[in-house]
Amino acid sequence: MPFDFETVLNRRHTNAVKWDVADDELPMWVADMDFETAPVIKQALIKRAQFGVFGYEEVPMAYYEAVADWWATEHNFRPQIEWLMFCTGVVPAISSIVRKMTAAGDNVLVQAPVYNIFYHSIENNGRHTLSSDLVARDASYAIDWDDLTKKLADPLTTMMILCNPQNPIGVVWSRATLQRLGELCLKYHVLVVADEIHCDLTLNGNAYTPFSSLTAPVAHNSISCISPSKTFNVAALHAATLIIPDAHVRALVSRGINNDELAEPNSFAIPASIAAYTEGHDWVAALRTKLAANQRQVQTYLTAELPQVKLVEAQATYLLWLDVSQVTTDSAALAAFIRQRTGLFLSAGDVYRGDGNRFLRLNVACPTTTLTDGLARLKAGITAYQQVQA
Amino acid sequence: MPFDFETVLNRRHTNAVKWDVADDELPMWVADMDFETAPVIKQALIKRAQFGVFGYEEVPMAYYEAVADWWATEHNFRPQIEWLMFCTGVVPAISSIVRKMTAAGDNVLVQAPVYNIFYHSIENNGRHTLSSDLVARDASYAIDWDDLTKKLADPLTTMMILCNPQNPIGVVWSRATLQRLGELCLKYHVLVVADEIHCDLTLNGNAYTPFSSLTAPVAHNSISCISPSKTFNVAALHAATLIIPDAHVRALVSRGINNDELAEPNSFAIPASIAAYTEGHDWVAALRTKLAANQRQVQTYLTAELPQVKLVEAQATYLLWLDVSQVTTDSAALAAFIRQRTGLFLSAGDVYRGDGNRFLRLNVACPTTTLTDGLARLKAGITAYQQVQA
Ligand SMILES: Cc1ncc(COP(=O)(O)O)c(C=O)c1O
Ligand SMILES: Cc1ncc(COP(=O)(O)O)c(C=O)c1O
Repeated sequence: MPFDFETVLNRRHTNAVKWDVADDELPMWVADMDFETAPVIKQALIKRAQFGVFGYEEVPMAYYEAVADWWATEHNFRPQIEWLMFCTGVVPAISSIVRKMTAAGDNVLVQAPVYNIFYHSIENNGRHTLSSDLVARDASYAIDWDDLTKKLADPLTTMMILCNPQNPIGVVWSRATLQRLGELCLKYHVLVVADEIHCDLTLNGNAYTPFSSLTAPVAHNSISCISPSKTFNVAALHAATLIIPDAHVRALVSRGINNDELAEPNSFAIPASIAAYTEGHDWVAALRTKLAANQRQVQTYLTAELPQVKLVEAQATYLLWLDVSQVTTDSAALAAFIRQRTGLFLSAGDVYRGDGNRFLRLNVACPTTTLTDGLARLKAGITAYQQVQA
Repeated sequence: MPFDFETVLNRRHTNAVKWDVADDELPMWVADMDFETAPVIKQALIKRAQFGVFGYEEVPMAYYEAVADWWATEHNFRPQIEWLMFCTGVVPAISSIVRKMTAAGDNVLVQAPVYNIFYHSIENNGRHTLSSDLVARDASYAIDWDDLTKKLADPLTTMMILCNPQNPIGVVWSRATLQRLGELCLKYHVLVVADEIHCDLTLNGNAYTPFSSLTAPVAHNSISCISPSKTFNVAALHAATLIIPDAHVRALVSRGINNDELAEPNSFAIPASIAAYTEGHDWVAALRTKLAANQRQVQTYLTAELPQVKLVEAQATYLLWLDVSQVTTDSAALAAFIRQRTGLFLSAGDVYRGDGNRFLRLNVACPTTTLTDGLARLKAGITAYQQVQA
């Protein structure tokens, strides 16, 4: 069955966070897609709505089986059923885990530039962010192992939030890197929270390694966060799953998630997730092809039309990390200028910290015509910015 | 349009918490109803599902207008729009407010017997429950003002959670009582959290007074929690609203709700709530009539068939508080016996504390045939229990 990734949807005035913009603006910022979700999910949601009763809902075994089966088929690793725990979202889970598994004043290690909401989860709860910044090299990023080791060894560092695949830089970390990192965390008693929300959206054959599939001691020192939300464009379905191999960690996190009232599914979360994970394979395969094509379109366009902007190749996600260091080191000012001048609303890189002040993030999960429009606006904006600066 | 409260729905094996029981058991415990929701809500949910895109969602002004208009029409009081704040549930809000607005070790005052989850929200967050128990008098309850005053005056008491109408005893507190209580709380610097989740389900002309409609100083010392969840049987819609007249309190609670990741609506919460609050008036009026009729059926049955059980008249809610003190002072044992012997699953009163050990709570939000079945089982269970005891 062919899936439709080309129809331009009208999401203006639908309460969509992404599309709360002026009528001539084009939003390519927050991480949701301008595609309908998979038809099997839409059908499951309509069916659930038609049932007509929406009382307190529990998580059936069929949900956990569906999650585990999806991982087995898509990622060559089947987590044990008892490792799995439902929760209402990845960010809610991370915030709750930070509160439950670290103490006020602790360091939580991240690798900037990384998903900005991690900083909220850490800092709004009175913990400190300690970043072992990734090092940019030839339009890609590498870990500074000496720096990382030193920061993990700090006794105040009690948790690390890993992002794999990493938003916004698009890296899929290798098994060897993850194992090395996991062993360091184990050695220094740092609990790993692996945010794997983008793991289904790997591109061009790049393989993702579930953190929970690493060697037992390393896996037992981890909590992985997964969700259909990015994969199937159902962010407001409020469904996510934690993979927690260690029974003691699981018991603690379960108390935290329940105490923070993040444990109960809404009426739609379970049936839609089961539909996604049991019947969504073909749709995601088609989506990956489309996202890879969109990235190629961007690459081709930049090379031909906007060579002063360099693309960091995304091995995963629909979020492209554009190096604008030849244009500015103040990407916030650049992003504001582009929006004001052309209506193109993309994310300034500085919020991701690290070297983000030299980058813009472009969301390319949209039909070709929308992307073409966005690229033309990007060129117009950058060109005008350079003229104004000159 | 006539509404259907008589069709017996099959909710077994639908992931409903209430119906996760053995096949011959009849659940009349947790507070959800065995009715379909209002047709206007069902239609709104189907329509939202058909839209097909489920990205990050924001709360539009139309939502707050719908809430305020409902209160104006149904409750003769229109809260100001800026007082209103969306959150994902009443219990999540209360837990978050306890964490944000009190300190570990503080006393939170309640009036037992009261909704048992209040105790979780207080105690799981490291606060103490201090109850000024209600005093039973002639099959109804009264406040012991001396005891209440003394406990509010304790400097360790910083919050009171009020339940109006009160689950499980069915009392609707009068304006005079609320004003007196509010003034005491103001005097002793105790913030009032008024859980008004059952306020739309008042029966037989009993009038409910929104706490936020009291005199300005009293109202400004309060946070009220409202939701379509009980009214329209949409507990797993995950939609609720806080009414917070005071700007400073509002700013603090807003930080708490956001920090605890309870501020974002799922895809269905907003459209269904708007449908409920703009088009649900007739349905709720019909529902109230049905609930009053069911209570009369219980009253008639008890008088004729089971005079050793006394009904505390419910002025609101579909939860009936049955005085079984002539049968036992261990309602937990009685409830377990009834369930084991007859399959009728109701709530033992002890979890609500206070004098709950002498009560059972019966949920009568069901078709007549179901209620008739439940009452027969209740009689069989009580009779058998008395025989075993004799
Ligand atoms: C790495 C990462 N984690 C989490 C989220 C959000 O997860 P949720 O919506 O389940 O809270 C995002 C959204 O962009 C993300 O990129
Ligand atoms: C008094 C009271 N408050 C709150 C709730 C539950 O609210 P929510 O499902 O929005 O957390 C109930 C449910 O029975 C209740 O009786």
